[in-house]
Amino acid sequence: MKKFVDLNSDVGESFGAYKIGLDEQVLSYVSSANIACGWHAGDPMVMRDTVKASLKYGVGIGAHPGFFDVMGFGRRNMTLSADEMKQYTIYQLGALYGFVKAAGAKMQHVKPHGAMYNMAAKDAKLARAIIDGIWEVDKELIVLGLAGSELIRAAKEKGLKAANEVFADRAYNSDGTLVSRSLPGAMIHDKDIAISRVIRMVKEGKVTAINGEDIGINVDSICVHGDNPEAVLFVQTINEELSKAGVEIKSLSQFIK
Amino acid sequence: MKKFVDLNSDVGESFGAYKIGLDEQVLSYVSSANIACGWHAGDPMVMRDTVKASLKYGVGIGAHPGFFDVMGFGRRNMTLSADEMKQYTIYQLGALYGFVKAAGAKMQHVKPHGAMYNMAAKDAKLARAIIDGIWEVDKELIVLGLAGSELIRAAKEKGLKAANEVFADRAYNSDGTLVSRSLPGAMIHDKDIAISRVIRMVKEGKVTAINGEDIGINVDSICVHGDNPEAVLFVQTINEELSKAGVEIKSLSQFIK
Amino acid sequence: MKKFVDLNSDVGESFGAYKIGLDEQVLSYVSSANIACGWHAGDPMVMRDTVKASLKYGVGIGAHPGFFDVMGFGRRNMTLSADEMKQYTIYQLGALYGFVKAAGAKMQHVKPHGAMYNMAAKDAKLARAIIDGIWEVDKELIVLGLAGSELIRAAKEKGLKAANEVFADRAYNSDGTLVSRSLPGAMIHDKDIAISRVIRMVKEGKVTAINGEDIGINVDSICVHGDNPEAVLFVQTINEELSKAGVEIKSLSQFIK
Amino acid sequence: MKKFVDLNSDVGESFGAYKIGLDEQVLSYVSSANIACGWHAGDPMVMRDTVKASLKYGVGIGAHPGFFDVMGFGRRNMTLSADEMKQYTIYQLGALYGFVKAAGAKMQHVKPHGAMYNMAAKDAKLARAIIDGIWEVDKELIVLGLAGSELIRAAKEKGLKAANEVFADRAYNSDGTLVSRSLPGAMIHDKDIAISRVIRMVKEGKVTAINGEDIGINVDSICVHGDNPEAVLFVQTINEELSKAGVEIKSLSQFIK
Repeated sequence: MKKFVDLNSDVGESFGAYKIGLDEQVLSYVSSANIACGWHAGDPMVMRDTVKASLKYGVGIGAHPGFFDVMGFGRRNMTLSADEMKQYTIYQLGALYGFVKAAGAKMQHVKPHGAMYNMAAKDAKLARAIIDGIWEVDKELIVLGLAGSELIRAAKEKGLKAANEVFADRAYNSDGTLVSRSLPGAMIHDKDIAISRVIRMVKEGKVTAINGEDIGINVDSICVHGDNPEAVLFVQTINEELSKAGVEIKSLSQFIK
Repeated sequence: MKKFVDLNSDVGESFGAYKIGLDEQVLSYVSSANIACGWHAGDPMVMRDTVKASLKYGVGIGAHPGFFDVMGFGRRNMTLSADEMKQYTIYQLGALYGFVKAAGAKMQHVKPHGAMYNMAAKDAKLARAIIDGIWEVDKELIVLGLAGSELIRAAKEKGLKAANEVFADRAYNSDGTLVSRSLPGAMIHDKDIAISRVIRMVKEGKVTAINGEDIGINVDSICVHGDNPEAVLFVQTINEELSKAGVEIKSLSQFIK
Repeated sequence: MKKFVDLNSDVGESFGAYKIGLDEQVLSYVSSANIACGWHAGDPMVMRDTVKASLKYGVGIGAHPGFFDVMGFGRRNMTLSADEMKQYTIYQLGALYGFVKAAGAKMQHVKPHGAMYNMAAKDAKLARAIIDGIWEVDKELIVLGLAGSELIRAAKEKGLKAANEVFADRAYNSDGTLVSRSLPGAMIHDKDIAISRVIRMVKEGKVTAINGEDIGINVDSICVHGDNPEAVLFVQTINEELSKAGVEIKSLSQFIK
Repeated sequence: MKKFVDLNSDVGESFGAYKIGLDEQVLSYVSSANIACGWHAGDPMVMRDTVKASLKYGVGIGAHPGFFDVMGFGRRNMTLSADEMKQYTIYQLGALYGFVKAAGAKMQHVKPHGAMYNMAAKDAKLARAIIDGIWEVDKELIVLGLAGSELIRAAKEKGLKAANEVFADRAYNSDGTLVSRSLPGAMIHDKDIAISRVIRMVKEGKVTAINGEDIGINVDSICVHGDNPEAVLFVQTINEELSKAGVEIKSLSQFIK
């Protein structure tokens, strides 16, 4: 029975005069931070601040590269070549690396954002391109991706450490993929149910799929959000309920080898 | 009498479908390359290619950070705070560092671009901000700036290595500053005169100022351009004439300590 | 004694996933809306929505062009040529015109934003460039600018209608210019005093300068903000207090001829 | 037998310091100009210049809207909503309208660029969104699109004038669609054959498909390019050969009703 799990959240998404996310609050409850790298969100001042805040709360620092599309917040698919995907990853890892170095810190992981995350979950070629980019920059980085996705597969094939991510508020198909948001029942709205599911996923490695079947699921990290006070409250609750259930919150670097 | 000098050129300024600069040609004649970092010019594909081409020709790799203004090619002054200047430097150094790391190479130097270069030459506060940014990312980097500028002063104060740059095609005031381009005689159009002046600057450490007076000048590197075939021919000529005059072309890392 | 005045506010400053400003609320109290044109803030979806909301509340629609600098929210001075300033104005007026046309509406005025506003207030050449741009697009547009500024002067010289704007929360020098924010006493923090000053400015055309002297001031419009609930409350209060004092809120097109 | 045709070319694609296209040369041979609107290429200075050059050569002025992706030159598909597609069209039409108005000219047509063109050719929903945007800005504009595409269909359904475009250098399938560039024989490299095909398409309304079958094709305009001297020479040749064959070059507004 697993006794620990990572909690990760996207942070550092403010941009110039535009503020998004209650970063300081969410950082006090999670163990890993995915920091936007200035392409879909974030700017150099925000990146500096977010690396510092992550250090202050002892949270693992991760790069959160995305598409060059602030207007679409990196959520719109773009047909990029594998080589573009690779070089865009290298650029953004490097940029965050600058602030990590300046803060005397260490980068723990990489998690692609939005459309880049979704495309890399399904497209093996793009997944390998991102993995190649990470590999060339730093072979010690942990790749955080959708549990059972092409990105995880590509990371392992290459020899990079990989961490499987699950979503507390999403339903699963019986093959372990996420139920599409366009289908009924895709979202788990009841917070108590969401938390029970997460605890079971961590401790038993199982989740009830949308067709009622129990399936196996591999959980290293749970994705949570800090966009508004209600979301932060949910992060606090999930953090506390995991502890009560005997599951320790640990950042990825403490157990992904 | 000095027997060597560095030749540097801005490269990697193409952007997407837009091509600028005969990079491969100019890289075969210079010893240090200032590579655009995607903010005023360059993109990740171009940065990767330019790092590789610099390696191929054995040219020292340098970051060429600029303002976030592709439309103005980084040539338009912007009123930025010292902190913005510092973080923008860190971001861009980091981004290029990604490609340098991916290529298994080493970064040699940093030279700010355009408006950033000009502002940092005159404004001690902004110069110190840029220097602080470089210092926090990598204390071994050489700062390449206008001979006798605030940027050079700030680098030395901080303990960073600094290299003084001169321009073959520009006239100097008797205090060692460049004659403003808006004044008559600011540009040296005769290529033979330009080359003789440069050779004298390197070998004797002297140049005739616009008022006819001989002044001392400290030369570590000469700035050249590769925008068009004529410019590249001038780079070839200056390279050859320096050799004939017994001046070796060496990249900065070989003599700046 | 003047019996009416315009209230104007910057709106439409949200951008993609980033929200700024309580636009619907502030639009219910003002008479003229300055709509961002996508260069320093705003995007096409936001522009469409803001034009529609302005129509809904019967508020005069104005273009609010700024610098191409979302990261700096258009607040950072840039050294642009007069020709750049002119063409950037034409581009942004045109872009907003698209949405105004699509909504079957009419554009009432133009007010430059942030750094563009400040530079155009002081620099006669840049002011004339902006005015030339407006003139070439639509000779019927009203120019809204700092009372007594170069922009107002240039508009009148050219033959464009001009409206003088004042700030409720700023102190004035005895020559009618704003006291620099870096000086003590520049901001009027007491809301009651701010409102009394505004009412006197409108009704008597007078304001007490920072040196205690009473000076004449020409007021067509008062600039207010809708960034947060407190700011919106102030707009509501100023709106109500003006009415109580017998001053009608009218949009510019109703009285600027 | 048809005795006239329009020749159109993409122009105004330079951006800041970056130059693309021999615009002045190509404008002397074509009858309609598709002017980039600053989103995938072009900037306000370039738009002003290109509108003026089009007027000088008596060429019909068209808007050439594209995706907000200078780095990809608007050639990369993006998953945009129909509403985004519509508002992005309105924005760009409006922006070009500013320069057209400033030049005292008239806008003749709209042709979407690159990925926007391709997506609108196949996706009826996106095509209708673009058409709705054009309709709301100016009901007199002619829509220029791939012959027989969804964009043409949507334009006609809405009541907008539509012009069918063909490509001299592309092979056609027997259903009138273009042979995908990834297939052998997709490009017609022999310039004489390309020109003969074009003349036949115009005069007889027929073309030999890749399977050898003769198919009917509706031609209002031929797309040509001005990227390099060779391309411009081809435009000159096609212009001359059409004239020799008794086909007059006329801009769209002269015959699309």
